[in-house]
Amino acid sequence: MIVVMKNSASKEEILRVTDALVKKGMQVQTNKGVDCTVLGVLGDTYMVDKERVGMMNGVDRVVSVQEPYKKANRKFHPEDSIVHVSGVDIGGGTLTVMAGPCSVESFEQLEGIAKSCRKSGAKVLRGGAFKPRTSPYAFQGLGVKGLDILTEVRQETGMPIVTEIMAPKYVELFSEKADIIQIGARNMQNFDLLKEVGQTKKPILLKRGLSNTIEEWLMSAEYIMSGGNENVILCERGIRTFETYTRNTLDISAIPAVKKLSHLPVVVDPSHASGLSYMVESLALAAVAAGADGLLIEVHNDPKHALCDGAQSLTPDQFDSIMHKLTALKNVMS
Amino acid sequence: MIVVMKNSASKEEILRVTDALVKKGMQVQTNKGVDCTVLGVLGDTYMVDKERVGMMNGVDRVVSVQEPYKKANRKFHPEDSIVHVSGVDIGGGTLTVMAGPCSVESFEQLEGIAKSCRKSGAKVLRGGAFKPRTSPYAFQGLGVKGLDILTEVRQETGMPIVTEIMAPKYVELFSEKADIIQIGARNMQNFDLLKEVGQTKKPILLKRGLSNTIEEWLMSAEYIMSGGNENVILCERGIRTFETYTRNTLDISAIPAVKKLSHLPVVVDPSHASGLSYMVESLALAAVAAGADGLLIEVHNDPKHALCDGAQSLTPDQFDSIMHKLTALKNVMS
Amino acid sequence: MIVVMKNSASKEEILRVTDALVKKGMQVQTNKGVDCTVLGVLGDTYMVDKERVGMMNGVDRVVSVQEPYKKANRKFHPEDSIVHVSGVDIGGGTLTVMAGPCSVESFEQLEGIAKSCRKSGAKVLRGGAFKPRTSPYAFQGLGVKGLDILTEVRQETGMPIVTEIMAPKYVELFSEKADIIQIGARNMQNFDLLKEVGQTKKPILLKRGLSNTIEEWLMSAEYIMSGGNENVILCERGIRTFETYTRNTLDISAIPAVKKLSHLPVVVDPSHASGLSYMVESLALAAVAAGADGLLIEVHNDPKHALCDGAQSLTPDQFDSIMHKLTALKNVMS
Amino acid sequence: MIVVMKNSASKEEILRVTDALVKKGMQVQTNKGVDCTVLGVLGDTYMVDKERVGMMNGVDRVVSVQEPYKKANRKFHPEDSIVHVSGVDIGGGTLTVMAGPCSVESFEQLEGIAKSCRKSGAKVLRGGAFKPRTSPYAFQGLGVKGLDILTEVRQETGMPIVTEIMAPKYVELFSEKADIIQIGARNMQNFDLLKEVGQTKKPILLKRGLSNTIEEWLMSAEYIMSGGNENVILCERGIRTFETYTRNTLDISAIPAVKKLSHLPVVVDPSHASGLSYMVESLALAAVAAGADGLLIEVHNDPKHALCDGAQSLTPDQFDSIMHKLTALKNVMS
Repeated sequence: MIVVMKNSASKEEILRVTDALVKKGMQVQTNKGVDCTVLGVLGDTYMVDKERVGMMNGVDRVVSVQEPYKKANRKFHPEDSIVHVSGVDIGGGTLTVMAGPCSVESFEQLEGIAKSCRKSGAKVLRGGAFKPRTSPYAFQGLGVKGLDILTEVRQETGMPIVTEIMAPKYVELFSEKADIIQIGARNMQNFDLLKEVGQTKKPILLKRGLSNTIEEWLMSAEYIMSGGNENVILCERGIRTFETYTRNTLDISAIPAVKKLSHLPVVVDPSHASGLSYMVESLALAAVAAGADGLLIEVHNDPKHALCDGAQSLTPDQFDSIMHKLTALKNVMS
Repeated sequence: MIVVMKNSASKEEILRVTDALVKKGMQVQTNKGVDCTVLGVLGDTYMVDKERVGMMNGVDRVVSVQEPYKKANRKFHPEDSIVHVSGVDIGGGTLTVMAGPCSVESFEQLEGIAKSCRKSGAKVLRGGAFKPRTSPYAFQGLGVKGLDILTEVRQETGMPIVTEIMAPKYVELFSEKADIIQIGARNMQNFDLLKEVGQTKKPILLKRGLSNTIEEWLMSAEYIMSGGNENVILCERGIRTFETYTRNTLDISAIPAVKKLSHLPVVVDPSHASGLSYMVESLALAAVAAGADGLLIEVHNDPKHALCDGAQSLTPDQFDSIMHKLTALKNVMS
Repeated sequence: MIVVMKNSASKEEILRVTDALVKKGMQVQTNKGVDCTVLGVLGDTYMVDKERVGMMNGVDRVVSVQEPYKKANRKFHPEDSIVHVSGVDIGGGTLTVMAGPCSVESFEQLEGIAKSCRKSGAKVLRGGAFKPRTSPYAFQGLGVKGLDILTEVRQETGMPIVTEIMAPKYVELFSEKADIIQIGARNMQNFDLLKEVGQTKKPILLKRGLSNTIEEWLMSAEYIMSGGNENVILCERGIRTFETYTRNTLDISAIPAVKKLSHLPVVVDPSHASGLSYMVESLALAAVAAGADGLLIEVHNDPKHALCDGAQSLTPDQFDSIMHKLTALKNVMS
Repeated sequence: MIVVMKNSASKEEILRVTDALVKKGMQVQTNKGVDCTVLGVLGDTYMVDKERVGMMNGVDRVVSVQEPYKKANRKFHPEDSIVHVSGVDIGGGTLTVMAGPCSVESFEQLEGIAKSCRKSGAKVLRGGAFKPRTSPYAFQGLGVKGLDILTEVRQETGMPIVTEIMAPKYVELFSEKADIIQIGARNMQNFDLLKEVGQTKKPILLKRGLSNTIEEWLMSAEYIMSGGNENVILCERGIRTFETYTRNTLDISAIPAVKKLSHLPVVVDPSHASGLSYMVESLALAAVAAGADGLLIEVHNDPKHALCDGAQSLTPDQFDSIMHKLTALKNVMS
């Protein structure tokens, strides 16, 4: 961190800034020039509240040199992290496909899709029991009953399950029933929820918020990790831009960015990113080519009658065809 | 709502779509043309899940004509709603200024600011006890202790208080202690929290999310209102765009838009929108000129030593000067 | 400008960076710390290509302290600039309203609107002769004939005219016929056109690009000014964001920002910013309250039959009513 | 196109709208319901100015069903278009890599890079002679001299060249000297320039604007094609969003979108999209996996001393390594 003092800064002001930083455990190096003084700040600068320093008397600007996160930072953990999920390893050069319907509708529906996806090569079953919906009048998911169906199908098929949590009060229940707890895009900065899941040891799939930067996303991972839970899987699912043709804009650059900045695994959700089933194949292939550790893909036995988001779901046959292409691609990538 | 069927749609497909809509309580008018069939859908169409209809066999596209919200809709409630807050009326042509520090730091600090703001004409005291911070290492607010300080200062000054809630578990506590419960931008689509505060009768200040459309914002108000709590105050606080000079981009158009679409009061937070104290006056005046029912302004006795966000806070003197200009402007506006 | 060298930078690398900056006419102050060297760069740093320095060996990062523009910078020209347009002064605390139709359609149409707008208090007549249209099949304006109609109506009414130029080849013609040459949003970074109009002495109305930052906008003004033409009027007309309810998002903060950063006058176009005639009044009032030096408003005698953009045009009566409110507001603002 | 009339629309208003559409050569089908009338419009609806219809008396809204472009539309040209460039075929399942420096600096520099890139498998040489720069004080390119160097190196190496044009007055010169004329992102809606290059038969590489939708991009292609020049290559180079880690956000979804909507070839520029050389490989692979017909990659012999944009350029060795991976990927894709 570098603190540039104003030309007009007095000796006292410089001292006060220096003292405040030293009290926070930093080392401060004073570079006095003819016209301005520049303070070089060394130590765990992520612990320093940049905004607070920036408004002290005599400070012109504060420039971060280090990233503001530590546990999620590759600098302090050079090798890839691998998250172990009931026999499935996510990260570290593997390719894990998580597939399933948008919403859990019935045991029969879910079992059928799960078996079909497993046969095509999916390793994890996804399905929503609690659904975040923009309208209070829209279908909100089966709730606890949906969660029960998921666990029954897991028992039947042996596939670990990933499903979205929407409130802190369910953390215990999800810890018991789910294999991976998903934090949805709209809750990426629901800090209370992040703190709660940080108290568990469950793998957390943390979706990027619709308008959150890569740095904010990693800071939300840091919330979970600083609570003691290092089993975080990042999921890019599209950001909000001016383009309206696709539901969101898949930020493919986030994959190499996260790979460089962090050691955590990163997966991609091409179904929600585009909202268009015809694009899922192209985006899934692109994500793997860009280095993603996995994919989250919506598959429905009968997209035309799905209770939500049908337009972005694939049929089992389409999914099977994509899995063949992904395998061929993955072979050439490694 | 208008459903355009594909040219290739069969009679059976048209019937199935019609039946599904009729079952939802809609009236359906079939307009059969030479080349395509258009269904006019009448009734409470906000109850229809547009996405689900869009993916039925034979459907080309679904066009909304009505807004997807009802309780928040001015069409069904033409006169302005006024929210009554412990003696202060918000909405309906009045101008209510809510002022105070970003964070509650101590009784002395808050009392000093409160008295000063009240003297300048502020009607409501704002102050954060629970603070949403991007970094887990940054100051998170005094929590329950901060809430207690707020209530003590309310007793001292008679000013009702508005403060942010961050988790459903605190709804009861906030209902008891706060006069207005604030839902922050990052929680605008925390649907569980919306449902919980919808069960109370407390006035709710609902901030617009950083990347949420006006329609989504009104849908979140609808969540609260459909739960039984119609005391919703909307707060525009800037959206996220490519411009980095200001922290966010104040969407001034949201004021006339909300005024047309809804009967709910709308207030503006120029401090968070810009993050630059020098702009607060211009933006506050602009908001009132555009028709805002109130303002949320950060005031700090000593911005240079505030625990957060100092750069966007005003001194009591600056605030007093703005209040004079706002009064003159409000007089000419009405 | 501050150049932070990498910890690993060698003496030779530091010397090479210093030499390169000195050759550009800068003074360089070397602040050697225990762990890193920081170079303070003084002089006309806007002449230094920041990117090029940033990629030299041993450089960690380059931090701008000064703005990258000089002629448009208020630091070097503290008092407001006033642009003189055929008897009308724009800037410096005045409020200039420019009104007229989106497109020039006929002499009769334009004359009628001009006289009506003049009576309501408009000082400048606006009207498009060359129209930028997204579709090659849409109406492209009357071209040179439209320009002729504008000059005839100017002769008739005495109102100076502002109209948009779309290609460098017309600069001479526009210099002769128009009072203010408008550079549209889509041409804000048409650098060739900027250079050409910079060779004239004509007042230039420079609209902000749909996705351009305030800094880029001022850099485009700098292009014109560095060519010798200091008669630049900036025009905020909305930026492109994720919000689709309004055509664009009026960036009201750009007004106080430009007023602080630059001495140039800034006007606002609420008609194009929103695309909704019902909002024009609110946005016009907000712009003036925020400190705008003027407004650009679309007025049409018969919006329902206008050749384009009718939905955003006002009737002469609506315009007259707004002018009354603007006058009252302006009185209280000064 | 569907025109929904207001409930209150009179018979005369419906007739007037119908007449206006019929005069434009459309067929109009009137679907009269109990509550509203819906007009189905058939024919070359891209010729109808949607905005103008929308503001006619009695019209509630106009819904496009067809795309507003015809020549660029895959519906009217189902097979892939292939653009022939001096012996190189672009489009139709091939993969064409265009490589070279950001700016042409000297014959020696360009020749060295060209030979190296050709050896690695690049088919087209890219290099800027006229450079669009945000600052008037930054290096603007060698201009005509740069163009001459490009043609000399073409003669030497046999590689066709692509280079950016910035003003209509150079169209003749570029038609003579370049193999592909590039329209830069900032000029995507410089309609005058589009019309001029539409008069030639030269292949045009049309970059997507920073804040332009896919539809607007295809409309700009339509401008060129409707002028008679169907040799258009589309180039995705990143859009502007709130994310600041990368210079722009590569919109990978634009590739499958363009492939579905249009028959034109689409290439990707990962260098400008990210501005980060370490990402170029990942993004290039992703683009090919998503179906791109080619790539535009910046290569520099000595990125540390390049005159601009060094941070995004690759060394020849890095480029060679990427070409090997691209070849392996392309083999598995087809």
